[in-house]
Amino acid sequence: MAVHLPKGTRDFLPRQMSIRTRVIDTLRRVFTRYGFDAVETPAFERIETLTGKYSDENDKLMYRIHKRGKNAKPGDCDLGLRYDLTVPLARLVAMHPELRMPFKRYQIQPVWRADRPQKGRFREFYQCDVDILGTESTLADAECIAVIADALSELGFKKYKVLLNDRRILSDFAQRAGATTTQEEMSVLTAIDKLDKIGAERVRQELTDRGFKAEELDPLWTLMDSEATNEDCLSQLTTMVDKRGKDGVATLREIMENLSNMGIPVSQIRIDPTLARGSDYYTGPVFELHVDEPKVGSLGGGGRYDGLVGSFSGKDIPAVGFSFGLERILVVMEELGMIEATNTAAKIMVTVFSDALRAESSRFANHLRTAGIPTDLYLGTGKFKSQFKYANARGYPFMAVIGPDEMDALKVTIKDLSSGTQHLVEQKNAAAFLQGYTTEVSPKG
Amino acid sequence: MAVHLPKGTRDFLPRQMSIRTRVIDTLRRVFTRYGFDAVETPAFERIETLTGKYSDENDKLMYRIHKRGKNAKPGDCDLGLRYDLTVPLARLVAMHPELRMPFKRYQIQPVWRADRPQKGRFREFYQCDVDILGTESTLADAECIAVIADALSELGFKKYKVLLNDRRILSDFAQRAGATTTQEEMSVLTAIDKLDKIGAERVRQELTDRGFKAEELDPLWTLMDSEATNEDCLSQLTTMVDKRGKDGVATLREIMENLSNMGIPVSQIRIDPTLARGSDYYTGPVFELHVDEPKVGSLGGGGRYDGLVGSFSGKDIPAVGFSFGLERILVVMEELGMIEATNTAAKIMVTVFSDALRAESSRFANHLRTAGIPTDLYLGTGKFKSQFKYANARGYPFMAVIGPDEMDALKVTIKDLSSGTQHLVEQKNAAAFLQGYTTEVSPKG
Repeated sequence: MAVHLPKGTRDFLPRQMSIRTRVIDTLRRVFTRYGFDAVETPAFERIETLTGKYSDENDKLMYRIHKRGKNAKPGDCDLGLRYDLTVPLARLVAMHPELRMPFKRYQIQPVWRADRPQKGRFREFYQCDVDILGTESTLADAECIAVIADALSELGFKKYKVLLNDRRILSDFAQRAGATTTQEEMSVLTAIDKLDKIGAERVRQELTDRGFKAEELDPLWTLMDSEATNEDCLSQLTTMVDKRGKDGVATLREIMENLSNMGIPVSQIRIDPTLARGSDYYTGPVFELHVDEPKVGSLGGGGRYDGLVGSFSGKDIPAVGFSFGLERILVVMEELGMIEATNTAAKIMVTVFSDALRAESSRFANHLRTAGIPTDLYLGTGKFKSQFKYANARGYPFMAVIGPDEMDALKVTIKDLSSGTQHLVEQKNAAAFLQGYTTEVSPKG
Repeated sequence: MAVHLPKGTRDFLPRQMSIRTRVIDTLRRVFTRYGFDAVETPAFERIETLTGKYSDENDKLMYRIHKRGKNAKPGDCDLGLRYDLTVPLARLVAMHPELRMPFKRYQIQPVWRADRPQKGRFREFYQCDVDILGTESTLADAECIAVIADALSELGFKKYKVLLNDRRILSDFAQRAGATTTQEEMSVLTAIDKLDKIGAERVRQELTDRGFKAEELDPLWTLMDSEATNEDCLSQLTTMVDKRGKDGVATLREIMENLSNMGIPVSQIRIDPTLARGSDYYTGPVFELHVDEPKVGSLGGGGRYDGLVGSFSGKDIPAVGFSFGLERILVVMEELGMIEATNTAAKIMVTVFSDALRAESSRFANHLRTAGIPTDLYLGTGKFKSQFKYANARGYPFMAVIGPDEMDALKVTIKDLSSGTQHLVEQKNAAAFLQGYTTEVSPKG
């Protein structure tokens, strides 16, 4: 019988899990430090909760579940798998009016999209979102950026850059280019969003082809290419835009000041007047985090989206959030060896010398476990030599042997499997020996 | 717009998440200590992977996903949501022949069953499985029991009982009652499995109704009701059964000895010759863990199932495992207050005295965060009084105030929100003050 995984999905074996778990635990720790609390939502939502919130194209990528029950016709569908974590959050908040605002939550869960699988793109992948609901304060925008920047540092990414812009500035330019409806504005923004991929010349051409006055956007390209400081850039922008755009500039100044108070040096922030971010629900500041070292580009972004959350509850709930490309980060960290992958979390494997000595080994394993040392006991039926091979292949740092001599002397031979050195230790001191040894040879423990 | 959750599913708000996360972290820690490593599998599997592995009745409870693509007809289905964690494990092992046996894995992930929702029964719920593949050693059976018993102790469950039996003993009794096929054997076992719910008299009646010689099973009821020690019980059983049943008895003796070496006292083990366990794939020992204090009954069980895992790979892969009722445990622990639920993990909320002092509060919050203290900064636009109400409602242990006086003196007022006492502290000593204070008033930290 041939067995396969569904297209675009993955199993995570212990080696991958050792990396994923440590990254996710680090993120949880940093988010908690900033006062974000966890929520989780079900894997599927009622189909009417999900549809119409994204674009038509995105709706097509949703996994739909067969409706059940006597009256269900083939092809009927009443549930869909979660497509992102933002719409479920909006639904959750509408159902829980008791939640105190501002509400800061993080959520790390898989989402599903029937996209065409490509390298690094999967149909099941984890999203990792921080959002702050119920406040218009620019402190909230800054905190979303600061917490992610801090998380990346903690994961070992050294040099990063925060790109900042405000949709209101872009909207003004779009109007001047001839956009008269929200849809036309989005059309201009979508073109600008391609700048990185296709360059200014082709963006300009695309805008002209769509009937917009492309030259109105030239100041954006000029500013971006100039060596202007953030402050110069903002000063120039504010002279070019209308009231709404000026509000955008003022907001960006506040966010930069907040970031500085939160320990993000001004040198790591760059005003990028061409930053658009794809989604059409952003209403104010937008931001992206780019990592220079190692060189991997954007690791996530976000912005303010004051309309979406309230759409379920009919209440006005301002919101700002940051979505984090967890899978991307995991792939990068694994490829660059930024995090040590291990086949097993156990520090030591206790061998079973013979059937007669099985009880002794079992008791010793229990002793180590009680002392808190991750310990594996050999459970196979292989001879000593095959136990040794097994231990090496699995990659335990240490192996323990209790033969007849060791047993009589209440001792144990502990073998360091990386160096090959052996140590004869009293059983009762073995846990302390390992704890000391581990600290000594691998400071990261 | 009315919003609802899909039937039988739940959101987990920060308060529930604070419990779930701690329980799951504890389980992960204990499993790791025993040398079990984590794996994860996708939420959905190809439908042919899932169907035919459970009973027909179970197959009906599976969530099916609409097939996609041009040739798909309405009602076509090629994927189904994971129904348990055992079949995905078997599929994973078949696809990864490089995995070294014995292979010890744990898996904590949700599964989905379109069961009728009842109190404590959901359509999305977490399973938590430990399994050991690739060995027939009874050490493996014992480790599955020991690791779960240890996990329960660590969670605060005090008195537990391990119930033990072996399917081969029951099979022999079933044959003597007239069962001639595997199906008929299962029919007898299913009746015995109801003993707890309906009592011996009605089980006997049910067996008679189905045409079995119910009286052949009477020794089981007698033994169970007797005050016989485990050893007496096993000695009597071994005289009653055939070769296969005698193997079962010998296996149980080995498991008990192993458990004792692993630190599970014999007094906590009970041979229960009527323990059947529902699933039809068990082939040898079966076990259940019952908790007496607090009184909550069975918290999970498992057994040896030597046929299932190999069914995908065509190889013979012996297996033993334990499945843990995580949702049940969480409900029990929350109801009995065995674990402290918190609305927020943040230890302190830093207020914002005025717009002019916003930067000062922001810098102070950053200072505490850098020291590793989970810190929330008030992000709303409310006056001081409403900040105080917010802090109380959210349940932070502490609140920090930096007014003009504090700022001038480089100090901060820290208010203990449970006692109401206030402390004027130098800002640079605040982190140490909180760390000391926390230890002092709440030893569990």
